[in-house]
Amino acid sequence: MSLTIDDIREASDRIAPYIHQTPLLRMKNLDAFLGCEVYVKLESMQVTNAFKIRGVMNKVLQLSDEALEKGIIATSSGNHGKAIAFAAKQLGINATVVVPDSGSAFKADAIEALGAELVRADVNERFDVTETLAEKYDYTIIPPFDDYDVMAGQGTVGLEIVKQHESLDYVILPTSGGGLLASTSTAIKHSPVDTKVYGAEPANLPKYSESLARGERTKISRQKTIADALVSDQPGERNFPIVQENVDGMLAVADEFILKAMKLLFMEGKIVAEPSSSVGAGAVLEGVIEVSAEDKVCFVISGGNVGLDMLKEVDY
Amino acid sequence: MSLTIDDIREASDRIAPYIHQTPLLRMKNLDAFLGCEVYVKLESMQVTNAFKIRGVMNKVLQLSDEALEKGIIATSSGNHGKAIAFAAKQLGINATVVVPDSGSAFKADAIEALGAELVRADVNERFDVTETLAEKYDYTIIPPFDDYDVMAGQGTVGLEIVKQHESLDYVILPTSGGGLLASTSTAIKHSPVDTKVYGAEPANLPKYSESLARGERTKISRQKTIADALVSDQPGERNFPIVQENVDGMLAVADEFILKAMKLLFMEGKIVAEPSSSVGAGAVLEGVIEVSAEDKVCFVISGGNVGLDMLKEVDY
Repeated sequence: MSLTIDDIREASDRIAPYIHQTPLLRMKNLDAFLGCEVYVKLESMQVTNAFKIRGVMNKVLQLSDEALEKGIIATSSGNHGKAIAFAAKQLGINATVVVPDSGSAFKADAIEALGAELVRADVNERFDVTETLAEKYDYTIIPPFDDYDVMAGQGTVGLEIVKQHESLDYVILPTSGGGLLASTSTAIKHSPVDTKVYGAEPANLPKYSESLARGERTKISRQKTIADALVSDQPGERNFPIVQENVDGMLAVADEFILKAMKLLFMEGKIVAEPSSSVGAGAVLEGVIEVSAEDKVCFVISGGNVGLDMLKEVDY
Repeated sequence: MSLTIDDIREASDRIAPYIHQTPLLRMKNLDAFLGCEVYVKLESMQVTNAFKIRGVMNKVLQLSDEALEKGIIATSSGNHGKAIAFAAKQLGINATVVVPDSGSAFKADAIEALGAELVRADVNERFDVTETLAEKYDYTIIPPFDDYDVMAGQGTVGLEIVKQHESLDYVILPTSGGGLLASTSTAIKHSPVDTKVYGAEPANLPKYSESLARGERTKISRQKTIADALVSDQPGERNFPIVQENVDGMLAVADEFILKAMKLLFMEGKIVAEPSSSVGAGAVLEGVIEVSAEDKVCFVISGGNVGLDMLKEVDY
């Protein structure tokens, strides 16, 4: 098994009726702040406000009728959970989402509002709880990133980007387990464009930076970060080798600059980005990557997981 | 004097180097909430985050060298003031903005940051203060809406809309003095499209609704509204007859629904709109206008005047 651009093209046809093609916008108002020609790919305007639905839908649409009848399950405190709930609702099947009992009420409410069954579990036991339930009820577990079908769906972000703009210099993607990064870089690097692809991750959880430096998947010690959707502590098994092959570099970004970027996107761009998807702009603000005024730099903005409660915490 | 679509076309050429063409986006995620096919024209992504710069720039670019050397002045607590300051900075001339001493610090800071001189005045004396200063220093007063050159610039919003989508059923515009409404409706109604144009205003300050019903400009008693950029208490003298001729109707919207719309745009659309530019979506939420699932409805979203402080007041 592997991931090819043809897999991504097939996924694109498969999921098209269920997802939106999201806008790629030129954001001139941000140029002066980021020192480059700024573009944003607004996956925040995707169904469920995040790219996650692309991967989930591609996976679920390939399940057998029997598996669909039993239902699906996932462990997620956020965007993946919303995607699971939405996909199940669209297809009229059952979905269970296991959320950590420490998670934000805002996120859990959004998942429940879409009709999924919520199961609360201790944060350290949540994956075990998911497996136990899956076994007991014959649910299919839908992984958030470490899966070729999920990746093929997520990679449609890359197909859209190259279709919408063929001469971008950089695409910078928020990175946790590496699903979006591996798949989108596959789509871009196998298209006739000359675009560099970078992943951006919290400096407090630099699993990809460390793993790429060592040449092997490395589990790092868990630290807190404001980017609460980017909390994987190691690269995904299937994602890592693809990232190794395709990606031009990783950017580890301090929480301080992730927050600054979120405020910048809000105040000057008038778009809502969760901290986890402000990490790319944060990298440029912090100077972790050097860009010039002529560089066309596209930031993928995803994530519905910012409530007004989050903004209330931001001191401007 | 009057306002023609040719004036607006000339303004479009004149101001092009200084402004952005803003995106007109299809927002499918909002359809279910508003019961129609939702489009937004994002003037919030305009220079200074509001359409005001279009009118100001068209006016200032036609001033004599002598007038430019003296400088410009305006009374404004918000977007118009920011536009004045930005235009002056671009052209290297002096600008003075008279703000009410009761206004928000966020707004005044934004104007000052652009390099304009701030003068604070009692809210009831601010127009007198502006005139006194204009006379003393030979400044040119730049009106916010009641001016043909300003309107010609603002009407470029309408030119862009019909260029970006030729089969919209409705365009709904936030309305205060009527500059945007008069000018944009002129552009749309004199283009080969079949689009209805509505103005939306706070129910607490229904100056256009009342004036149109009576057939004459009517000054109404001043009441508070959350839509703090829509506080004119009567239609502009030059704006009113144009609105009478072009506009299909006015929508008076309760503050409660203005706020609901602002939250909807934020939570589901992931775009930042100030209350004053959430008024159109509020009209649909409140049911002040009936739209059907097939109707293509475009809301003009303007306004940088929402700080995080404003969102903190919103209870979600």
